[in-house]
Amino acid sequence: MLNRVRSAVAHLVSSGGAPPPRPKSPDLPNSTSAPPAAPPQAPRSPPARAGSGSAAPARTVEARASFCRPTFLQLSPGGLRRADDHAGRAVQSPPDTGRRLPWSTGYAEVINSGKSRHNEDQACCEVVYVEGRRSVSGAPREPSRGQSCWSSQKEVTHESLVVGAIENAFQFMDEQMARERRGHQVEGGCCALVVVYLLGKVYVANAGDSRAIIVRNGEIIPMSREFTPETERQRLQMLGFLKPELLGGEFTHLEFPRRVQPKELGQRMLYRDQNMTGWAYKKIELEDLRFPLVCGEGKKARMMATIGVTRGLGDHNLRVCSSTLPIKPFLSSFPEVRVYDLTQYEHCPDDVLVLGTDGLWDVTSDCEVAATVDRVLSACEPNDPSRYTALAQALVLGARGTPRDRGWRLPNNKLGSGDDISVFVIPLGGPGSYS
Amino acid sequence: MLNRVRSAVAHLVSSGGAPPPRPKSPDLPNSTSAPPAAPPQAPRSPPARAGSGSAAPARTVEARASFCRPTFLQLSPGGLRRADDHAGRAVQSPPDTGRRLPWSTGYAEVINSGKSRHNEDQACCEVVYVEGRRSVSGAPREPSRGQSCWSSQKEVTHESLVVGAIENAFQFMDEQMARERRGHQVEGGCCALVVVYLLGKVYVANAGDSRAIIVRNGEIIPMSREFTPETERQRLQMLGFLKPELLGGEFTHLEFPRRVQPKELGQRMLYRDQNMTGWAYKKIELEDLRFPLVCGEGKKARMMATIGVTRGLGDHNLRVCSSTLPIKPFLSSFPEVRVYDLTQYEHCPDDVLVLGTDGLWDVTSDCEVAATVDRVLSACEPNDPSRYTALAQALVLGARGTPRDRGWRLPNNKLGSGDDISVFVIPLGGPGSYS
Repeated sequence: MLNRVRSAVAHLVSSGGAPPPRPKSPDLPNSTSAPPAAPPQAPRSPPARAGSGSAAPARTVEARASFCRPTFLQLSPGGLRRADDHAGRAVQSPPDTGRRLPWSTGYAEVINSGKSRHNEDQACCEVVYVEGRRSVSGAPREPSRGQSCWSSQKEVTHESLVVGAIENAFQFMDEQMARERRGHQVEGGCCALVVVYLLGKVYVANAGDSRAIIVRNGEIIPMSREFTPETERQRLQMLGFLKPELLGGEFTHLEFPRRVQPKELGQRMLYRDQNMTGWAYKKIELEDLRFPLVCGEGKKARMMATIGVTRGLGDHNLRVCSSTLPIKPFLSSFPEVRVYDLTQYEHCPDDVLVLGTDGLWDVTSDCEVAATVDRVLSACEPNDPSRYTALAQALVLGARGTPRDRGWRLPNNKLGSGDDISVFVIPLGGPGSYS
Repeated sequence: MLNRVRSAVAHLVSSGGAPPPRPKSPDLPNSTSAPPAAPPQAPRSPPARAGSGSAAPARTVEARASFCRPTFLQLSPGGLRRADDHAGRAVQSPPDTGRRLPWSTGYAEVINSGKSRHNEDQACCEVVYVEGRRSVSGAPREPSRGQSCWSSQKEVTHESLVVGAIENAFQFMDEQMARERRGHQVEGGCCALVVVYLLGKVYVANAGDSRAIIVRNGEIIPMSREFTPETERQRLQMLGFLKPELLGGEFTHLEFPRRVQPKELGQRMLYRDQNMTGWAYKKIELEDLRFPLVCGEGKKARMMATIGVTRGLGDHNLRVCSSTLPIKPFLSSFPEVRVYDLTQYEHCPDDVLVLGTDGLWDVTSDCEVAATVDRVLSACEPNDPSRYTALAQALVLGARGTPRDRGWRLPNNKLGSGDDISVFVIPLGGPGSYS
């Protein structure tokens, strides 16, 4: 995935040599240090296909067969076995002795409590350099012609080009997984959360149910949102409404507050369609007895009674349980990209961008993360480069809990997360500088 | 329109007698004073069909033939002529001597400077009472069965029922206009902005390019957003992508920063599709030479080179200029409904909800409106019930300007609005009480 983002941005930065001049091409610098990316990837939250164990974002059959963890953890064979131990669930971080992650970025992860053999989260973090060619600067603007709405040419900002490059990277990655599936019978899918820093701005791209927040001077700034059957209800319903053949006569695009019973035919029932945010009444017809495209709430929300995450990569072969109906047409590989301008605020060493997979957020609120940021960082020296890893470890431990009462329990005795948990902590004004 | 909203809410409040019991039906009070509605309607901003003079939201051929203004203006035949005078553009308000609008709501309007014979904005404001029948309270909840995502029944709030009723009212109104078109050859369409107060909450429903803002203690709270080819780009592109037959081989769903020239075939050009917010490059193919579904910026943005507003009522017969391609499939009659809870804040007499048609907002920013609210209301006695009409008049005058230098000019010498302008000012904590 990082390679895809890197090549997309590289393509953007280095373009301009061979191809013909482009309209009002924004001039990106010819040579730039770009972009560090820190993408944690997690398999989709396991719905009906939990336990299939086929969810890792595999590249080839070979890669899928051998369990691996992020290179920067520098795990020995023994370390790899300990990281893989569901009973101990030891928290893993890059070694103190090794090379630090860029800008002293902190990282920690822990394996699940047994739901799958291996940790299915994946992560990487790199600084990459892109050599830009000297651009043939923009062709002279042609005089406007035709309809009046063309009288001015639309402005295209640098920022929207980077956003477009990241969006395309996700799409290309998804297509690459489709090709590899055909060649190697590779199954499964994953969600993806990617951070790119380029020219003073942080781009956070999310497709799935991972989450990124900035904690700045105690304030929480959401940098992503989750894509689930609930948050994407109207997109999914609209697709089912416009392309009813995708519902295969098995599902209805309408939503009801509960399953409609055959005996209720002809009676009135609350419903929502693709255009509505509120509820209204309709008379139940035969088609309404079909299973709804979207049902359930919160962690139990499902699309086509199968999947709980509606954006991500892969899953080209996923089908409705006990049916041949494909689910992929409803899944989107496009991320939502949010941009944060680092130059608009004087950041201190305690301001951080926190990325976590669903294992963290299932049991931890944004406010709890902000409280942990404050507690851990205020206890460390501001210029101690290990403070962000200490914070990532504290967040992972806080979501995992400790083994007690036949399970992993949090201090409040609630269940901790039994899922894989991965956390990046990227300092926004820390010891490493972005210059 | 008001009748539609009234009957939809009445239906909601009074339902429960005859029909069979509904699932987890929220119990609305059996009798309630509901809902005052203040909907200003304006014809869509005139694009290619400007000057056609066919835009008034007509009910019948008869209604369309005779020019009328809101009943509450109590205009005499002479007054009606003055209101209709494009040269004088006299500001109209309800007479001081007559019955005030509910809660001392202020209103003012002015006709356009000549773009159409009559003022095509329409408005009404009423308190309506709905008699509720005693409801057969909810049937016992059935035990859950089937898939796990059905284990709990979805909660349906009172609020979401009111929102659903308003959404349906817009849809039914649009269908009613379709029926009347068939019967009476009625053309044209309009946008609609509706405010409903019910049980402590204000519901603002908008479909089109009117706008509502709350000004509270100087702070601006947007209560609507405009629906234009720019703000609805992705919805329109998605529809064109999924239903290419709606583009008739004349349009492409892709967006380009400017019109693609035939000589650019095979070259690279920036584009955006229905999934993207950023821009990326593609090689120009033959299909890309078609006219884009969405083009232009700001007031010049157009869908199918024809229309600048993408939600509203009517326009069932609208077609692309010099083509038979219908536009209606891309127009949505569904409003976005925002809810403001009046009980969450102690409102003072200077806190108001301001509604305006595009004639106001074309030349007036939210901040300028807030400044006028402060200036006018602070110069009036807090318990003077005419202060909200004075404010509405000041807002209309400020957008109209004065005749000077061959046009209507604002104090800064920029052009005032030549469009019809209508403004409601609804006090949130004024002399009239919501109890």
